[in-house]
Amino acid sequence: MDISALRTANPEHWSKAAAIRALTLDAIHAANSGHSGMPMGMADVATVLFEKHLKFDAAAPYWPDRDRFILSAGHGSMLLYSLLYLTGNEDITLEEIRNFRQWGSKTAGHPEYGHASGVETTTGPLGQGISNAVGFAMAEEILRGRYGKKLVDHYTYVIAGDGCLMEGVSQEAIGLAGRHQLSKLIVFWDNNNITIDGSVDLADRTDQLQRFKASGWHVQEIDGHDPKAIDDAIVAAKKAGKPSMIACKTHIALGSSAQDTSKGHGALTDEKLIADAKDAYGWTYGPFEVPADLKAQWEAIGARGAADRAEWEARLASVSDRKQEEFNRIFERGVPKRLSATIRALKKQISEEAPKVATRKSSEMVLEVINPIMPETVGGSADLTGSNNTLTGDMGVFDIDNRSGRYIHWGVREHGMAAAMNGMALHGGVRPYGGTFMAFTDYARPAMRLAALMKIPTVFVMTHDSIGLGEDGPTHQPVEHVAISRATPNTMVFRPADTIETAEAWELALNSKETPSVLSLTRQGLPTVRTKHTTKNLTAQGGYVLAEAEGKRRAILIATGSEVEIALAARDLLQAEGIGTRVVSMPCMELFADQAAAYRKRVLPAGPVRVGIEAGVRIGGWDRLLLGERGREAKAGFIGMSDFGASAPAGVLYEKFGITAEATVAKVKELLG
Amino acid sequence: MDISALRTANPEHWSKAAAIRALTLDAIHAANSGHSGMPMGMADVATVLFEKHLKFDAAAPYWPDRDRFILSAGHGSMLLYSLLYLTGNEDITLEEIRNFRQWGSKTAGHPEYGHASGVETTTGPLGQGISNAVGFAMAEEILRGRYGKKLVDHYTYVIAGDGCLMEGVSQEAIGLAGRHQLSKLIVFWDNNNITIDGSVDLADRTDQLQRFKASGWHVQEIDGHDPKAIDDAIVAAKKAGKPSMIACKTHIALGSSAQDTSKGHGALTDEKLIADAKDAYGWTYGPFEVPADLKAQWEAIGARGAADRAEWEARLASVSDRKQEEFNRIFERGVPKRLSATIRALKKQISEEAPKVATRKSSEMVLEVINPIMPETVGGSADLTGSNNTLTGDMGVFDIDNRSGRYIHWGVREHGMAAAMNGMALHGGVRPYGGTFMAFTDYARPAMRLAALMKIPTVFVMTHDSIGLGEDGPTHQPVEHVAISRATPNTMVFRPADTIETAEAWELALNSKETPSVLSLTRQGLPTVRTKHTTKNLTAQGGYVLAEAEGKRRAILIATGSEVEIALAARDLLQAEGIGTRVVSMPCMELFADQAAAYRKRVLPAGPVRVGIEAGVRIGGWDRLLLGERGREAKAGFIGMSDFGASAPAGVLYEKFGITAEATVAKVKELLG
Repeated sequence: MDISALRTANPEHWSKAAAIRALTLDAIHAANSGHSGMPMGMADVATVLFEKHLKFDAAAPYWPDRDRFILSAGHGSMLLYSLLYLTGNEDITLEEIRNFRQWGSKTAGHPEYGHASGVETTTGPLGQGISNAVGFAMAEEILRGRYGKKLVDHYTYVIAGDGCLMEGVSQEAIGLAGRHQLSKLIVFWDNNNITIDGSVDLADRTDQLQRFKASGWHVQEIDGHDPKAIDDAIVAAKKAGKPSMIACKTHIALGSSAQDTSKGHGALTDEKLIADAKDAYGWTYGPFEVPADLKAQWEAIGARGAADRAEWEARLASVSDRKQEEFNRIFERGVPKRLSATIRALKKQISEEAPKVATRKSSEMVLEVINPIMPETVGGSADLTGSNNTLTGDMGVFDIDNRSGRYIHWGVREHGMAAAMNGMALHGGVRPYGGTFMAFTDYARPAMRLAALMKIPTVFVMTHDSIGLGEDGPTHQPVEHVAISRATPNTMVFRPADTIETAEAWELALNSKETPSVLSLTRQGLPTVRTKHTTKNLTAQGGYVLAEAEGKRRAILIATGSEVEIALAARDLLQAEGIGTRVVSMPCMELFADQAAAYRKRVLPAGPVRVGIEAGVRIGGWDRLLLGERGREAKAGFIGMSDFGASAPAGVLYEKFGITAEATVAKVKELLG
Repeated sequence: MDISALRTANPEHWSKAAAIRALTLDAIHAANSGHSGMPMGMADVATVLFEKHLKFDAAAPYWPDRDRFILSAGHGSMLLYSLLYLTGNEDITLEEIRNFRQWGSKTAGHPEYGHASGVETTTGPLGQGISNAVGFAMAEEILRGRYGKKLVDHYTYVIAGDGCLMEGVSQEAIGLAGRHQLSKLIVFWDNNNITIDGSVDLADRTDQLQRFKASGWHVQEIDGHDPKAIDDAIVAAKKAGKPSMIACKTHIALGSSAQDTSKGHGALTDEKLIADAKDAYGWTYGPFEVPADLKAQWEAIGARGAADRAEWEARLASVSDRKQEEFNRIFERGVPKRLSATIRALKKQISEEAPKVATRKSSEMVLEVINPIMPETVGGSADLTGSNNTLTGDMGVFDIDNRSGRYIHWGVREHGMAAAMNGMALHGGVRPYGGTFMAFTDYARPAMRLAALMKIPTVFVMTHDSIGLGEDGPTHQPVEHVAISRATPNTMVFRPADTIETAEAWELALNSKETPSVLSLTRQGLPTVRTKHTTKNLTAQGGYVLAEAEGKRRAILIATGSEVEIALAARDLLQAEGIGTRVVSMPCMELFADQAAAYRKRVLPAGPVRVGIEAGVRIGGWDRLLLGERGREAKAGFIGMSDFGASAPAGVLYEKFGITAEATVAKVKELLG
């Protein structure tokens, strides 16, 4: 690679890009860790994008109508941090760059949403950023459909690497973006032909241009070090009327002795290599030093969008107060004031009517009252709309000719759906929820974990949540999936017992600003167990006494979801034998753990034997409830699953696997001795 | 659709295919559950494939050199069951067809490996079958490379639906198959343009032919109801020299009033619909009735391969005894006799040398002695070869010009890797293992679960298994992943403390015939804690006393993997204060749970306080160990993670998150009161 030709061809561009490359080398040298090659390879593309196209204002990083920039190849985090520092982002100071990857710094190893403004999403697990971006672009379309170009009109730009494109989820994203002609989504593919194991050819020889084209994308191929070609390609992409992929032929670790090698992918910390690379760049400054005039040029880029922003703010101020209020509320993840009263009214009605319905149907009943008062909800399903009960009549289906439609047919793409929902939540102004079968949370896991890590309130509507789904058999019967969600930090797992608890769970999920929710819902019908109306949201306490013992309290049955019915039946049998039995409904273990110790002790006093009932594995958080955190609280047992399910009607399976009132009674008696 | 034209054009073919369609309608009617449309749509393709091409012998369903038939669109299970019944498979009797989807039947809701011969893999979760198939085809290539065409020379056929192709993992499979020119892999795409939510167009408009072509596949497009076109396409596919995709334009629920509708995807149980469809087929027989002459025609198809098989058996008998023995052994998942002595010798050497190494490196040391004596191992990594330490010098890299190479560069495709490894294990003759970072088990989850459900001994080498990976931060730091694997039934999760335990874990993983293993390995160096050689495999007991208390036993520390070192240091501190402390190493909780109660009680006697130490979440099976299954055994505490990690060097993270000897000592003292 003839670096000197690049330097002389466009020295102004070159020095800006060189600043990114030098900061990258210095930060990774200091951290003795990181990924040098990608920022060194993509600095030219990023420089042109930020200088000529990206609509942003470094002084107002959260301005809703900014263009979004997503570094899907998150290991190249120093590219993003360099850009943020250079353009004047207030979070990413030079001090933070010096503290790259250290405890407490804002410059986390991979870009993390919430650590610094300007980081639009957490990336690093490959394929996530490009899939988030589909959600960003859909959110933009939906909001533009509703509020008009006056308030919403921006692009989503992505840098993706070979790894992102090899991950299967990228295909889901590509298919969705192509299907919906998301014309404001522009992806730069860092086509450097290098991965950790060596040349990309070792593992893949896909013609990426053909692949994107097959899904309806506009594609271009350019020299990723030629600023004019980059600029021209972006101009063309904006005009394409389709999602656009720009294949940027680049050299990883450009200008260093590790250029074009897999060594160049990782941390380049050798001092001679660094010195030689800086020489090649004509970079004569000290470590972490950016000359003032160059910094000023970059800061001018960071300030370029201030006028756009001011004009946008004026436009926002010009719309009706009501619309402004709504717009601000939805971007603050607030709920409408009347949500609480709406949920209460539904609860009252249900407690009187006491229907027997599956909780997936309960969820639909709740959505039918929520969606009309929350224009920001966007629902969907991974091709199980009729089974997940996620579509309500008022939503409209998102499509090329119906951009304000609020329902997405995601196709058989659980992972892409979850990642795109995260993108919608991150974009703001949208409250996404989406459904699949609980067993297929497996497919969505990487994105569900990131929702928790990013602290965004994505709602996962997971139906058919146990062997209760019946004949489809063990491939479709979740056994460990509730446990998996509970094991994930910062996740609320709701397993409601009836429509009332489902309504309460939805209220909590929508009021959550920083925690995703998993709604674990049944296929099979369940009776209403909360037939006495309470205005209070009892699910907010996580667990509560649903039925008190008569006489001396000798046993406590703790159950969730579909097994609360069994617990109540077991209580009847036990009481008939004179064994005083309390039933605790535990729709959300995480919220129960958050309650004051005194409350928890009141619900689960030491002494009586305890039996947990859940058609899932015991490992899912049960033991601490049953035995007490420090042990010695109670003698305890568990009625649930210890192996995979089987193919048969639901009723047969409950019998065969021994999840019955009779088995519960037997367990209680065994423990009472 | 003019059914009568199809009937008259080729009546012999038609009646065979009609038998599949009629059995499908009858079985689903009886079960009142299932998926009718796909078998009705693909009966013609399947009939031609079985009649004219598939090399199989219904009387010997496990013959190693048979062609494999994989129903990736597993919801169409009645297609497979019909074919097995008709061709004379001994497991799938008419009685089993009548008991479709019922308790104890071999006709599970979705095809399940192990329930009936002729079911090559468990499908239903979409995209898995086509990805398994890549492993089947690779295994065939590898074994053909080693044993020659004489012993190994067969095709892998797949039927995949729109759902399979929308799942991201299909792209990983397509990319791999194209990259390696797996010319004996032939995929039929059931191109019926219908999914559950409606027309495929709702969610996807990808040009599938272009997409496959972009990854190097041979593609064809045919009328999936024209037997001649189907036959011709298979002939052409076999000659293509590349993996081949045949797009079969079909009508879902052909000939019924639900044809070409999403209703046709599900269970067609309406009696009039069924009667009308049978009328259209010219099918005049009673429910579950197949006329004898037609059954005989099908059975002749089932017997067609008997001669091929006999010739193959003669060829096997003609090779050296040593080769025959090895061939039989590897297909029975047996290990070579000298494995045990080899592992023991390594253990002895290591206990003397007592190196300080990361357990990922320990794993490599073990593989260096295993791979030379087990020609059936096939290793690989999802683009982290140097980090997962999965490649040993003797393996050779699998490639187009090195078919007997035993190492696969899977690319950044954790899910595709796991699914293809399952395919290899199912094919037989290969013992697959593959690596990625523990945090990215998330991506591989659906396939890891299926390995457990199918009872196949795939080995997942998961390195960088805690915050100990350091600067890459929380996106890359597993916290809940060990718990997730432990929550999955039929999975052995090994978290070895040093090289000795790693060797023992590998020995157990390789000796396992029906349980997959997850090896949870560190990035960071660990001391050898087993410095006294034992010939016995202590890891086989799951947990064991590593260091006994001196004096009165007042505390038991239970630790796994990298935290055993911390437990030993805490013991030193506690003993110095006169607090008698036992350390239990617990490399595999599942195996510990399998031990006799007396042994478990000996290791964990009631009385002393217990503290568990693991750099992960407590939910992962800890409570029962700490508190006893029925409670009341001990006062207990846990030192571990309760939230996501952070970006910083590993040592700093252990300090900041309080996973230290000092914190352990404090916890013990707190519990002692």
